[in-house]
Amino acid sequence: MTTTINVAVAGCGTVGGALLDLLAENAESIARRTGVRFAVTRVLVRNASLPRSSCLDRSLITDELDEFLASPADIVVEAIGGVERAERIARSALARGKRVVTANKALLRVAGPALAAFAHAHRNSGASLDFEAAVGGGVPIVRLLRESLAGHGLTSIRGVLNGTTNYILSRIEQGATFPEALAAAQRAGFAEADPSRDLSGQDAADKIAVLAWLAFGADPATLEVRVRGLSRHVESDVRDAARQGKVIRLVATAVQAGDGVHATVAPQVLHRSDAFAQVRDEENLIRLESDSSGVVSVSGRGAGGRATAASLLADLLRHSPHRHSCLLSPATSHRP
Amino acid sequence: MTTTINVAVAGCGTVGGALLDLLAENAESIARRTGVRFAVTRVLVRNASLPRSSCLDRSLITDELDEFLASPADIVVEAIGGVERAERIARSALARGKRVVTANKALLRVAGPALAAFAHAHRNSGASLDFEAAVGGGVPIVRLLRESLAGHGLTSIRGVLNGTTNYILSRIEQGATFPEALAAAQRAGFAEADPSRDLSGQDAADKIAVLAWLAFGADPATLEVRVRGLSRHVESDVRDAARQGKVIRLVATAVQAGDGVHATVAPQVLHRSDAFAQVRDEENLIRLESDSSGVVSVSGRGAGGRATAASLLADLLRHSPHRHSCLLSPATSHRP
Repeated sequence: MTTTINVAVAGCGTVGGALLDLLAENAESIARRTGVRFAVTRVLVRNASLPRSSCLDRSLITDELDEFLASPADIVVEAIGGVERAERIARSALARGKRVVTANKALLRVAGPALAAFAHAHRNSGASLDFEAAVGGGVPIVRLLRESLAGHGLTSIRGVLNGTTNYILSRIEQGATFPEALAAAQRAGFAEADPSRDLSGQDAADKIAVLAWLAFGADPATLEVRVRGLSRHVESDVRDAARQGKVIRLVATAVQAGDGVHATVAPQVLHRSDAFAQVRDEENLIRLESDSSGVVSVSGRGAGGRATAASLLADLLRHSPHRHSCLLSPATSHRP
Repeated sequence: MTTTINVAVAGCGTVGGALLDLLAENAESIARRTGVRFAVTRVLVRNASLPRSSCLDRSLITDELDEFLASPADIVVEAIGGVERAERIARSALARGKRVVTANKALLRVAGPALAAFAHAHRNSGASLDFEAAVGGGVPIVRLLRESLAGHGLTSIRGVLNGTTNYILSRIEQGATFPEALAAAQRAGFAEADPSRDLSGQDAADKIAVLAWLAFGADPATLEVRVRGLSRHVESDVRDAARQGKVIRLVATAVQAGDGVHATVAPQVLHRSDAFAQVRDEENLIRLESDSSGVVSVSGRGAGGRATAASLLADLLRHSPHRHSCLLSPATSHRP
């Protein structure tokens, strides 16, 4: 038995496009594994006349927000970016009792608690807000913080949270110049055309603020994050560090202190044997410390459309009625 | 506003005792963070006349199963071990519409799918089955597989899943003899009085079978796991490996193949730079590979009452009505 779930997707860039591809290419295996078939009802783009490479029925595309919002979707995926337009999409969908799934950390930093409260207020009509893909790409850190580690008494979070800068640092270590490394990150689909939010540390700051919200209840909008991004001299900094057997990583931290949460983003010079020094390319690593269970670390692909789309898909499947079906019928469900 | 949840705990050994201590010592911080206050209604032990070190009202202790099952608990924690008695406790509780939380991998290997189906059949009266603490100690691998990674199309799992043998291997690397290392593991509360299930690889086999169930839908009871534990010559094996710059780790694997799932547990000789070689002491590391998001790794304390009790607590809080309260009121909830 399969259930059909209607999905409207706002945004068809790296992440939205990868999700549409993932849904189209894996429709059969998703249906077999989970009992859910996703039907895309509408795709909102900024400019409907641009060519699209994603495997997508072009008649679904619109650049009219009202037309998009009128779509009979059960779930609205917000992957269009920005804050105001994204918030309007999210609120409109939640008010209609739809489930909202977003990858937008800038939106969550500004309005995460308000949107969560709004979703909660509309929960009886079916509204919910999920955002696994907003932090950590394919690393399931949001779910871990929202659920598994809720009772653990977390005291600190430390992470390499920006895949683009880590990829650039890794490439420079291997001999590339900074411009070559940046161009490679853009070719690989990690860095945006304008990579300034990555390089300045602002993207990592949004992410650590969201994690501090989930872990410590801090308000991400008012949490002060002291941010230093990659320096203009990053290439010579990396070479200098290498001569001492060290590497540079852009590390974000949030620490629960008596008087609140202290958060920073800054390049750190680390010995090669440090766990964070061993984070390569677009990988993310997040290390959580708690009173009760010590250190839990989680790592995986932190950037790239495919990994991020897989996290969106996990959110799409989250409230699925058949989510646990494989737990109940082991004899049949692992057959291809 | 706090909700009181009644909990009956079967078993007061390393894990059950640590949970009772955790609940007693952290009652205030748990209530503040989550809005839930846990009241222990009954504790089942094998012999009620033995002395107990846990901070526990002795009048709650019973060694009568029927008396235990008659307790007005919302949640029954099964940490008593064994299979038959544990299954009877779990089924009785589920049939009464109670939530069951267990740390018992041997039980899950034999009866996990049947118990999950039984819980599912009684879900409308409130029954549920959770078992985060059964695999990985404080590492939230069960939740990851049941929920976050459900749609990721996992293809393989590789893990150091037994904290006791890893602790022993680490100690031998540091110069201890095998008997010294084993005694140290027992003193630290990792190894049972009878450590044969750890040393033989049987504990790791139960765990990889449970993970193969969650990831691939394999029936853990009939899944054939090829098991080799630590050799009698483990001490000289470790010294021989060290001379080649290598270490030994007991690694469990489960791979989804065309015709089913292939699972093994065996000591592996690994280069020091291998991620699994860097798993020290009682740590566990689990590496999940998927089609869609590449490799996700998760690590943390794999053994010890405290870490395991923290995972039980996460399950206790799982269906809490206030679970997301900190998401909704960031301005106040992070204050001490």
